[in-house]
Amino acid sequence: MLNELFTPSVQHALDIVGIFVFAISGALLAVRKNFDVFGIAVLAEVTALGGGIFRDVMIGAIPPAAFTDLGYFTTPLLAAGLVFFLHPHVERIQVGVNVFDAAGLGLFCVSGTVKAYDYGLGLTASAALGLATAVGGGVLRDVLANEVPSLLRWDRDLYAVPAIVGATTVVLCIRFDALNAYTSGTAVVTAFVLRLLAMRFHWRAPRAWNRRSARAEESPAVI
Amino acid sequence: MLNELFTPSVQHALDIVGIFVFAISGALLAVRKNFDVFGIAVLAEVTALGGGIFRDVMIGAIPPAAFTDLGYFTTPLLAAGLVFFLHPHVERIQVGVNVFDAAGLGLFCVSGTVKAYDYGLGLTASAALGLATAVGGGVLRDVLANEVPSLLRWDRDLYAVPAIVGATTVVLCIRFDALNAYTSGTAVVTAFVLRLLAMRFHWRAPRAWNRRSARAEESPAVI
Amino acid sequence: MLNELFTPSVQHALDIVGIFVFAISGALLAVRKNFDVFGIAVLAEVTALGGGIFRDVMIGAIPPAAFTDLGYFTTPLLAAGLVFFLHPHVERIQVGVNVFDAAGLGLFCVSGTVKAYDYGLGLTASAALGLATAVGGGVLRDVLANEVPSLLRWDRDLYAVPAIVGATTVVLCIRFDALNAYTSGTAVVTAFVLRLLAMRFHWRAPRAWNRRSARAEESPAVI
Repeated sequence: MLNELFTPSVQHALDIVGIFVFAISGALLAVRKNFDVFGIAVLAEVTALGGGIFRDVMIGAIPPAAFTDLGYFTTPLLAAGLVFFLHPHVERIQVGVNVFDAAGLGLFCVSGTVKAYDYGLGLTASAALGLATAVGGGVLRDVLANEVPSLLRWDRDLYAVPAIVGATTVVLCIRFDALNAYTSGTAVVTAFVLRLLAMRFHWRAPRAWNRRSARAEESPAVI
Repeated sequence: MLNELFTPSVQHALDIVGIFVFAISGALLAVRKNFDVFGIAVLAEVTALGGGIFRDVMIGAIPPAAFTDLGYFTTPLLAAGLVFFLHPHVERIQVGVNVFDAAGLGLFCVSGTVKAYDYGLGLTASAALGLATAVGGGVLRDVLANEVPSLLRWDRDLYAVPAIVGATTVVLCIRFDALNAYTSGTAVVTAFVLRLLAMRFHWRAPRAWNRRSARAEESPAVI
Repeated sequence: MLNELFTPSVQHALDIVGIFVFAISGALLAVRKNFDVFGIAVLAEVTALGGGIFRDVMIGAIPPAAFTDLGYFTTPLLAAGLVFFLHPHVERIQVGVNVFDAAGLGLFCVSGTVKAYDYGLGLTASAALGLATAVGGGVLRDVLANEVPSLLRWDRDLYAVPAIVGATTVVLCIRFDALNAYTSGTAVVTAFVLRLLAMRFHWRAPRAWNRRSARAEESPAVI
């Protein structure tokens, strides 16, 4: 069973960490959008659990883990409470939050890919669902906040690429029968470090060639 | 079977009432957004059935009741037709619509919780899905209309709290083996009355403490 | 088996064509919104596969065909690559793209209805899911791009009606035991031609009668 790459308690602890940091990012956006305490809690839950719920629905893992594991459900509420009371302090450690968010990205793209493969999906589909697990919650967060998903915007540091690299590493390991705690840990760290580097050096992805609106990027009011 | 709290025909009639009033709220928003007749019908369907469909997908009740019960599907079309032809008159009775919407909120948070529990989910997860059943359609309605979900906005009267109270009452009754037609009816009425009071006295939920943007609430252009 | 209306290879080829043209429309919107190359790929995937994934989740066809057929998954990436490198040329043949999009609409409303019926849904629900298959991807595309879905807007040429006519034709044929390759092909062509006519003659659907905001349509800044 691939699911037993790590001992269950280690895997569960890593999941909770990922859920917590994603929930923080959702709660912070909710505060910036001036939402009330329930809006903060809802956005924390959706950001933390949305990607995993989408994956579980796609692979038929019903009910999704988010509804069967009480820890998965209550962790975002804890994060929402922290942000509610300590918002300026959490904002101040934004860099720290981003580092943890990068860790969540690495953990989820790997565990999402492994779970999808365990449920019988092909290698490409498993990698795609690993990516969806990692970035889906953030997309839902931005849609609910009525903003263009930052995943899609060209003026944000690379976010999808680290997750794609992590998920691809996992499926290559599966393909060559080399997936174990060591290689999957390497995949997590690779995605994590790539995301840190993307933030540090503001790596961005190119936009379409020869866009007619190429001049737009010079003007201040892009998008 | 918890599902048999009420006789099936009573339960079905209550569901249809809830679907109808939610559909009215979707159709009214569609008219305000200047959508055409199909946009009105789509927004009525999504608002009325979205929460229940989400719950049914989560608990594995496939296909969702919305696709197996012709009455569930056609009721929103009736509501859309009414709003299409009689829009100013429906607007005029907005207070009446709000009262019915509050009734729908109460009915759906209770029936959603009971159905989730019947499908084997835990108490907390059942309450969460009861809440999602009650408010999910409204969130989808606002997302499709490209607005910030009114559920999340601080400047709207309490909407989530009555549903949370109703769903929590139900799971407490289940926990203490006291769920019957009388207690679940009480939960419906409690949520209903709480929502009416929230509208009457403009109860609102607090926003994050010490928000940096605290001055924003003084300015006219909030959010 | 209704699924065998056409030979499997013909059906698959038609599906790929529909997926490709829908992906082009998603990728073009992504370029217009200034998304980066990953945003273009994501929007192409979502537009092309979203409607079918929604239908498959509703009818319990898990995992959805989009995750089991490698061709369904890679075709949108091809479309995204084409738009990425050849954007101005694709824009130039916008009329051609619209014609193919109309073909995709016709194909998907028919094949979606047939698949839903094959999975045991009723006639009305099957037609509704056929419509959802045809238009769902476009709605998701617009939601992710943070725009009001063009499906709902009154100032766009009819899009839902051709799909409704196509899906209704199919369920009528099923009802009267007359569904075969010939009649379902006729349904595809009917929806296709209706959509072409709607674009050619700018057919639009009416908005609500007696809207208070009726004067708004005279002003330039509608919606």
